Amino acid sequence: MLSINRERFKENFSALANIGVMREGGINRPTFSNGHFKAREWFKQKTIDAGFKFKVDNAGNHIARFNCPSSTSPVLIIGSHLDSVPNGGKYDGALGVVAALEVLQTVKDSGVILPYHLEAIDFTDEEGTLVGLLGSSAVAGKLSEMEIANPRGNQDVLVDGYTKLGLSPSTILTSKRAPESIAGYIELHIEQGKILYEENIQVGIVTKIVGINSCSVTFLGRADHAGTTKMEDRLDASQGASSFGLTLFNRIKNNYPACVVNIGKMVFHPGAFNIVPEKVVVSVEFRAPESRQLDEIKFDLITVAKESAKAYNLKVEINFLGKHPPVIMDPRVRSTIKRVADSLGLKSREMPSGAGHDSQSFARICPSGMIFIPSKGGISHSPKEFSYWKDCVNGANVLLNTVLQGADYVQLY
Amino acid sequence: MLSINRERFKENFSALANIGVMREGGINRPTFSNGHFKAREWFKQKTIDAGFKFKVDNAGNHIARFNCPSSTSPVLIIGSHLDSVPNGGKYDGALGVVAALEVLQTVKDSGVILPYHLEAIDFTDEEGTLVGLLGSSAVAGKLSEMEIANPRGNQDVLVDGYTKLGLSPSTILTSKRAPESIAGYIELHIEQGKILYEENIQVGIVTKIVGINSCSVTFLGRADHAGTTKMEDRLDASQGASSFGLTLFNRIKNNYPACVVNIGKMVFHPGAFNIVPEKVVVSVEFRAPESRQLDEIKFDLITVAKESAKAYNLKVEINFLGKHPPVIMDPRVRSTIKRVADSLGLKSREMPSGAGHDSQSFARICPSGMIFIPSKGGISHSPKEFSYWKDCVNGANVLLNTVLQGADYVQLY
Repeated sequence: MLSINRERFKENFSALANIGVMREGGINRPTFSNGHFKAREWFKQKTIDAGFKFKVDNAGNHIARFNCPSSTSPVLIIGSHLDSVPNGGKYDGALGVVAALEVLQTVKDSGVILPYHLEAIDFTDEEGTLVGLLGSSAVAGKLSEMEIANPRGNQDVLVDGYTKLGLSPSTILTSKRAPESIAGYIELHIEQGKILYEENIQVGIVTKIVGINSCSVTFLGRADHAGTTKMEDRLDASQGASSFGLTLFNRIKNNYPACVVNIGKMVFHPGAFNIVPEKVVVSVEFRAPESRQLDEIKFDLITVAKESAKAYNLKVEINFLGKHPPVIMDPRVRSTIKRVADSLGLKSREMPSGAGHDSQSFARICPSGMIFIPSKGGISHSPKEFSYWKDCVNGANVLLNTVLQGADYVQLY
Repeated sequence: MLSINRERFKENFSALANIGVMREGGINRPTFSNGHFKAREWFKQKTIDAGFKFKVDNAGNHIARFNCPSSTSPVLIIGSHLDSVPNGGKYDGALGVVAALEVLQTVKDSGVILPYHLEAIDFTDEEGTLVGLLGSSAVAGKLSEMEIANPRGNQDVLVDGYTKLGLSPSTILTSKRAPESIAGYIELHIEQGKILYEENIQVGIVTKIVGINSCSVTFLGRADHAGTTKMEDRLDASQGASSFGLTLFNRIKNNYPACVVNIGKMVFHPGAFNIVPEKVVVSVEFRAPESRQLDEIKFDLITVAKESAKAYNLKVEINFLGKHPPVIMDPRVRSTIKRVADSLGLKSREMPSGAGHDSQSFARICPSGMIFIPSKGGISHSPKEFSYWKDCVNGANVLLNTVLQGADYVQLY
């Protein structure tokens, strides 16, 4: 079986891991930050140096393409993302992008002729600094005008970022590809949980990805002098927000064991020691393996928000910010990954993914699969995120051979 | 009795009320913001145009001085502050400064000879963007090195601001004056509560000012992926912070009817939808009429913080940020204000102040008094802050005649 070039792979991964590093070692490359622009530039240069065709589509996705002889063939896409959460780790997303480039190069160097084109893509804004799965859902035709106009992140950053790329938010949706032009999608990623690590298994084969929904919940009271206004006369937005956060957390923990909710941020207005906060904006994200559960939690969230507001005589506004439904990974891709792992002598197991991934977008339109490798201690979205390099190399070789075995699962019209 | 010049007073007040205005009509002049620098510049120009001696001391206080014939006499200080809370009102502080300048000018125009010098002062950072009562407590010799080195606001803003003024944080304490050089201190201010407004009384005579203490409480957990980390495995700093905020609020409301607490701000780190917050910093301020109560609440706050942290397996750090003890206003000054109000045909009443004021600093070293006028609906620290102009003029005339009657209360060594 073919193998990737370990030295080249390591060298590329290390170069990228030095872009957007913070003092404490965390990676800070939120979408359209300086670090993110630098990482994108690195991908572009690497693609050109390696002799691949480089392209930027209207969603800002960076694409390295290796054509097969038949121009009418569809393309098998491999990739992930170079954006990160604030102060995150160096494996999340980056590993999949570097591995995708390495696979293209290994295939090219080997002289193997495949019946489909190959693309390695760095997708824009997977993490949701702006929208979440922005680039991949645009390509898959699953992004809406509404999500672009009403992003969960900062609208100005979205507009400024696309302008800097010489693109425009108004043409993002034109990056949609015809589904029949896409043969399949495969992604390598760290697990970001501790199952593989604790069970000492080298390869995870993703069965399904949980659905995600996010919203901002705004509690509105009244700004007052924090010295002269009696406690009982206050309309204190912080009390509603805190009550909401605690109640929702407990409700999900107790009633939905397979689901999670996160209160990632609260912003206080005007935000001074001596003013009763008149407005608190709460950022909420929740995930569930089934669409039905996402809907139930949404209903519960609205109820808890209204009850919390009422208890403190506040008003509340809820703004839902885009939903990614749960998806199933293609059974044929899963069995190919299993066979490849077996051939390489690697232990593997099937598992669901609690994290969102660009493969979610593609699973809705073409045969898609995901390969996980172990995360030490299950820690991710943190500077402490770590995977052993041996596991990274194993993952890249599973990706390479799953790509070579595409005939088993790709759709060739 | 002498009266201030209504037109000039109105013109000056209106000019100042146009500095640092936000779109919705709020005044935004936090210490060393652009709006604050412009307001300071206005005071300087006004002082020079009116022919008074202008001085900046090492705490950055802006001083207009009108000397009496005897150079060895002490000075009677009148004033307030031109800084504001974020998006506050146009009366808080500004009214007292404009009235102080107007009193100086009226006294000068009248040709009256007083046995003490007069100063109208705009004190630096009364509101506590940085320290709170910074300028006045420096002059009174009640500021400590520790408060400058460990401000409740942003240390960089403090250093940059003093640097822009051509001053240095290291010499702020040298602005202390010899107590025997200060004959007394009188301040005009809006009530910021609704007692005078509801009782239809024109003049409030402050008996005492509540003590204030503030602190930042930091809950520390662990950053984790908000999708892959089970609810029960999280160390979520937001849960501790929310529990602390709700519990403390209820404890003070139920156990200390004369006291107040405010959770003015929480800052989430790293603050993203999809990361479990590892750190939440809570800004807390509490006030009490008695020193003993301030100490009791401090003890309760520490207990609640520790319990909230323990309940969610978090760590907690508490940083106390300076305390202003409660003070009593001088009985002789109070009776002079009462007599002046009576002579002017104005209804008055004695009342405590729930808000902090620069007079707190001076009450610890010299005869001090405060004159309140009604706040419509009691609303303050808000763009909705409003006082009728007739009440403002009444207040300025009470201030003027209380200054002229200084012989009744000032200390002349």
